[in-house]
Amino acid sequence: MGKGGKKKAAKGSATPVASAPTPVIGWKIEQPEYDARVARVRAILEERKLDALVLFHPIRMAYVSGFFHLSTERPMAIIVGGDGKMGALIPWLEQEHIAKSPAVTNTKVYPEYPTGGTKHPLLHLGDLLKEMGLTKTGKRLGYDSNGYLDINGYDGPTLTEIAGEGVETVSARDIVDRLRAVKSEAELNYIIQSCIWGNLAHQLMHNKVALGRSPVEISLEASVEASKAMLAALGPGYQQFSSTFGLPASAGFSAGKNTSLPHGLYGGAGVQRGDILVTGAGADVAGYQSELERTMIVGEPDESFVKHYDLMMTLQQAGFDALKPGRTFAEAETEISKYYAELGVSEMQRHHTGHGIGLEGHEWPFIDKGCDAVIEENMVLSVEPGIYAPGVGGFRHSDTVVIRSFGAELLTFYPRDLGSLIVQL
Amino acid sequence: MGKGGKKKAAKGSATPVASAPTPVIGWKIEQPEYDARVARVRAILEERKLDALVLFHPIRMAYVSGFFHLSTERPMAIIVGGDGKMGALIPWLEQEHIAKSPAVTNTKVYPEYPTGGTKHPLLHLGDLLKEMGLTKTGKRLGYDSNGYLDINGYDGPTLTEIAGEGVETVSARDIVDRLRAVKSEAELNYIIQSCIWGNLAHQLMHNKVALGRSPVEISLEASVEASKAMLAALGPGYQQFSSTFGLPASAGFSAGKNTSLPHGLYGGAGVQRGDILVTGAGADVAGYQSELERTMIVGEPDESFVKHYDLMMTLQQAGFDALKPGRTFAEAETEISKYYAELGVSEMQRHHTGHGIGLEGHEWPFIDKGCDAVIEENMVLSVEPGIYAPGVGGFRHSDTVVIRSFGAELLTFYPRDLGSLIVQL
Repeated sequence: MGKGGKKKAAKGSATPVASAPTPVIGWKIEQPEYDARVARVRAILEERKLDALVLFHPIRMAYVSGFFHLSTERPMAIIVGGDGKMGALIPWLEQEHIAKSPAVTNTKVYPEYPTGGTKHPLLHLGDLLKEMGLTKTGKRLGYDSNGYLDINGYDGPTLTEIAGEGVETVSARDIVDRLRAVKSEAELNYIIQSCIWGNLAHQLMHNKVALGRSPVEISLEASVEASKAMLAALGPGYQQFSSTFGLPASAGFSAGKNTSLPHGLYGGAGVQRGDILVTGAGADVAGYQSELERTMIVGEPDESFVKHYDLMMTLQQAGFDALKPGRTFAEAETEISKYYAELGVSEMQRHHTGHGIGLEGHEWPFIDKGCDAVIEENMVLSVEPGIYAPGVGGFRHSDTVVIRSFGAELLTFYPRDLGSLIVQL
Repeated sequence: MGKGGKKKAAKGSATPVASAPTPVIGWKIEQPEYDARVARVRAILEERKLDALVLFHPIRMAYVSGFFHLSTERPMAIIVGGDGKMGALIPWLEQEHIAKSPAVTNTKVYPEYPTGGTKHPLLHLGDLLKEMGLTKTGKRLGYDSNGYLDINGYDGPTLTEIAGEGVETVSARDIVDRLRAVKSEAELNYIIQSCIWGNLAHQLMHNKVALGRSPVEISLEASVEASKAMLAALGPGYQQFSSTFGLPASAGFSAGKNTSLPHGLYGGAGVQRGDILVTGAGADVAGYQSELERTMIVGEPDESFVKHYDLMMTLQQAGFDALKPGRTFAEAETEISKYYAELGVSEMQRHHTGHGIGLEGHEWPFIDKGCDAVIEENMVLSVEPGIYAPGVGGFRHSDTVVIRSFGAELLTFYPRDLGSLIVQL
């Protein structure tokens, strides 16, 4: 269908298209990196004396196999065997997609959910486990969830139930999540690309803010313009992984009193003079996300705004400074909370300082007093300590940073100073 | 902030704004309907001898409480007690939002996930259960999932673990999902509104299809125009519930060979003459969704296209005809599958005929051989039998229908005939 153009170009050029070199930038993770990820999973399985890891979450499945999909009521799973095999449970509807994952050795295709006339998909998973020798007495299976996701009306048995009595099933969600936390060079490059296109979406949105225009309308226009530019720049090799009908690049904001709630859902009312804007922008590049958020003001700020803004800036600097490799996230967060206390604003701290970011917008680890993991080089995190002042508004910048040997390095680069973030009227 | 305009209007009008009547259309479900939903849940709890139902899924929480939120790593839960109490577990970050749900009698606010310096959020849920008298020996708790969702790096104990040894915990995901399947008059009205704005998005997209333009660009432009019109038409009372940065109304399509895979992820390549387009459109109205999908062709169709298109039309009519109240979904699907067999195209049937639709785009029940539920009046379903012909393309219309006493009534109304769906060049 419509391939004539390509053929003509091949005939007219000195080198046939078939032997043209592969572009350096493929907008996806290449197979050798997937192989290395699986090898790391297998090493941990051996340490923990597990015979296999069963993954039901689409992002973890994608991380080990390159198989990206939209989860629905039709369950899918990847089994990483300690013995070198990899199994996949897949509905007939999606069976061609799994062909993109060359490491999969054992595929089980089921007709439909709830049954399509045969049996429940998780019973087909049981058959697959059996074929892979994983239901013998004494086998130990790790899982990310004990059964498939609660999504779109799905219901079904647990993995423990389908594995049978002689098999031990163990929660092991952390295996893949901890590997994901430390980014490779390719992953870092895609996150940096995500920052660039998020930056464009944010700038276009910033330019469009005007009295009476609704946040939704401004955000939509900016997101669509940024996405179009991004698609044109990255070329036809670009593929969006994070959702089918969402936007490749997007920006949005909540305005006014809503901002004193960190996660305000936003409606259709127009921007007013004096509104505080709390913005957000990002983009999907090879499935990787970034986070850029800014606190802005419509027209000249008053004294109270400036005071809270300066507090937030001081605290964000404390956040950047606290992220040193070798200490724990709990130690870093305890240090940042001490700054809140010293500044006398502990009651305005509504959430911890930040979270991991990568294939998900929020992912493990967390910059939180309850996270005893050690900060490591090449972890990517949001740094976003907030100040929430009832009756005034919310103040939060969020930047994406990568941990280097010396500490946090900024990947986002939108201006952070107040002068740059006043919407001139 | 910026309230001056409203006050002036009040002074200048004969009737004070404070006593103006409430608009009939509130773009949300009103409290009496939530109360009725909870009463129905309680009646089922009594039948099943359960003392409470613990809900972790955001849509089920919203269904019983009106509390819509975006799920993240910070767990939330609603407890519907059989005794008339309703409990809510909520992070400090979101505590103001729960105030929108007047039926909540017991709220437990925790500082942060993983702990914020105190203890895991699910241990706070344990405290809440104890306060509500639900951890006494012999109590029976139903749940939708045995613990919080696997999302954004969350990890934690099961409900069974936190409820303690003397308490029985039982899977009861179906209680709310079955109630959701039968729609109220208000729900039907919002789904009809969703169909209208999905129709607009689809029409605008249809108008923009042109050779060489990418599906993504066309879809984005149409979605943004439709969303702007929708926001202007529905006024500032409109609120989007389904996601923060998504679009209120949207349309999209995949083109060419991708369409022979039912759920093709789409990239940036341009539309070509002869491409088959498989489209989708919908909108979020008061949180309710609809589904409109069409098979289109760029330029004049060939004989093979027309043959497969006609097959698909025949099968969709069989789908409409099969949905009679009183029979089971399994019976309906068996009848539709017989049509595939009679037409000699069973191998082109890649999925069952449809699914429920409401607060989720896919929800229980399913028009599937494994769904023994009875078809009831006021259920809303997609009807979308597909024909997938390798090397030719995918053929699928999806319409949203409501079940009436006489059978299926169409809620979507975009033209279905081939003549209307040829993109003229």
